[in-house]
Amino acid sequence: MESGGARVDPPPGLSYRAAGVDVQAKERLLARMASSIRATHSPRVLAGVGAFAGALALLPSERDAVLLATTDGVGTKTLLARRLGQDAVIGRDIVAHCANDLVAQGARPLAFLDYIAMSRLDDDLVATLLAAMAEACRALDVALLGGETAEMPDVYAANAYDVVGTMVGLAPAEGLITGARIRPGDRLLGLPSTGLHTNGYTLARRVLETAPAALHAVLDDRGTTVAEALMAPHRCYAPEVLGLLAAVRVRGIAHVTGGGLGANLRRVLPEGCAARLRRVWPQPPVFGWLRRAGGLSEDEMAATFNLGIGMVLVGAPPDLPVALLAAIAGALIHAAVRRPS
Amino acid sequence: MESGGARVDPPPGLSYRAAGVDVQAKERLLARMASSIRATHSPRVLAGVGAFAGALALLPSERDAVLLATTDGVGTKTLLARRLGQDAVIGRDIVAHCANDLVAQGARPLAFLDYIAMSRLDDDLVATLLAAMAEACRALDVALLGGETAEMPDVYAANAYDVVGTMVGLAPAEGLITGARIRPGDRLLGLPSTGLHTNGYTLARRVLETAPAALHAVLDDRGTTVAEALMAPHRCYAPEVLGLLAAVRVRGIAHVTGGGLGANLRRVLPEGCAARLRRVWPQPPVFGWLRRAGGLSEDEMAATFNLGIGMVLVGAPPDLPVALLAAIAGALIHAAVRRPS
Repeated sequence: MESGGARVDPPPGLSYRAAGVDVQAKERLLARMASSIRATHSPRVLAGVGAFAGALALLPSERDAVLLATTDGVGTKTLLARRLGQDAVIGRDIVAHCANDLVAQGARPLAFLDYIAMSRLDDDLVATLLAAMAEACRALDVALLGGETAEMPDVYAANAYDVVGTMVGLAPAEGLITGARIRPGDRLLGLPSTGLHTNGYTLARRVLETAPAALHAVLDDRGTTVAEALMAPHRCYAPEVLGLLAAVRVRGIAHVTGGGLGANLRRVLPEGCAARLRRVWPQPPVFGWLRRAGGLSEDEMAATFNLGIGMVLVGAPPDLPVALLAAIAGALIHAAVRRPS
Repeated sequence: MESGGARVDPPPGLSYRAAGVDVQAKERLLARMASSIRATHSPRVLAGVGAFAGALALLPSERDAVLLATTDGVGTKTLLARRLGQDAVIGRDIVAHCANDLVAQGARPLAFLDYIAMSRLDDDLVATLLAAMAEACRALDVALLGGETAEMPDVYAANAYDVVGTMVGLAPAEGLITGARIRPGDRLLGLPSTGLHTNGYTLARRVLETAPAALHAVLDDRGTTVAEALMAPHRCYAPEVLGLLAAVRVRGIAHVTGGGLGANLRRVLPEGCAARLRRVWPQPPVFGWLRRAGGLSEDEMAATFNLGIGMVLVGAPPDLPVALLAAIAGALIHAAVRRPS
């Protein structure tokens, strides 16, 4: 057996390729995408495309640090993206979702790894997703450090795919944000969402099944359709949040994903603290459409969707000068943390 | 809207749960598994279960380090595991696969993150997988730092699931292994595999379809059946390799996964180097069975399966005292790197 040559003979009879997995196609695809991926690599990246693990040199300023990592998926928004030919949105979404989770703990994102899986390898789909991920990583100065593309016949439905992302970051020990220091009287600052982000799509797709023509219904004065609203990208709050963290002290941050605003706020509020929110902020009209078209209860809406707030920052009043921050970050809610009644 | 209480009313009519996603069931499951996950947490873990991102404090000795990360899947071995009721193997496999990739670059594994996805949440399956992952992490002194469980109707086939893992580690800059310093005349040291590990299962399943009764066929004197051989765990080489790296200088390490021995050796051999391997090591009998039952060509076998060697270490002859290392690590092959002819 020779290693280092390029002998690839099509074998007779049963083969891995005939069984549904084309290893060479995957290698060709990776070669095609290598330049997009390398565009995310600063000289700090010591091993990337083709390595068993990606390697990133840490800067001296990062060497007293806490390591943070998060893994996320984008749910069944992939099915809608496929149907509407907007898979690039999914690539950006997964990077945004991961970055939001990292900055919610006070970390600066450094490296991203992707996983893309489907039944039969679709080169153009994978290329679209990887290019979008690489672009989103570059915008955040994050290295696309590794990943895996899996061709899994009999596991995935035809035309379905799954996308998973992992992001790794670092924070100085004193910069770690856990919510533990939140006290009654602290302020909440909510940042607006662009729509559903990446949560609640299985329910939204069921609502669409009851009203298929609604995809083309217009939701607002600007002519935004339901389809456009549902494919709005998951907003990436990382640049604004990192900017705020450099300027003010923040005690807790909730990224509003599965479970909605209530469940995700509970993840950061310590024992003895609660928050009462009056829903007075403007909601993207897609939520009203979902409520009406699906006949969804308020409780169901609140437990499934972000309802217009994608991230909540919590801090002591002198540290969260709301008027100023609202101007910077377009904050939509401000409320107070209180003792439970 | 109240956050901090526990109001969970079953909504009337269309709901996220009726649509196929049960957020509360996922929360209950995570609570059930929290103690297994926390058992992997040393005091270094500053944020884990329930956090938006897991956080791990770095030791002073790690602070001049290179960050390494890898994402892997286990392929369609999940389908066979499901059928045979051996899903715990998959949990161990994904941790082993990731750890092998990290040590192949010279990194000490520190943290693991999991992703488990299926059509409808199967509590017992997820619990089995997470418990097995946690046990494998503990054995490696790796923190199970985060993860995601996704319920995705219409994406996954019924009874199918996917498992993805990401492992993060650190290495001192001078300990990074890339293969770049491999020279003609260096030695190869192969470590034995337990079987297919996690590669080639789509082909193996096709072979099984042509001979379904073969699952119970006996392969060796010890009565090992084809089913048992196919479900052999992916061997974790991390403890042995980390031990070797502490004792001898290694220039390159290939983890033999998708593409087989040749393709994975090519990933570490620099320009101007090739390796000629004579396949004289003993192969686990499952490979002979696959070759015969599937009528597979030698090329197809070599490009799909590891054929008995799961990891290859490359080093200069004085640094790789083969007789000694073979005794420690049970090495099966030793060959030399050469200039291509």
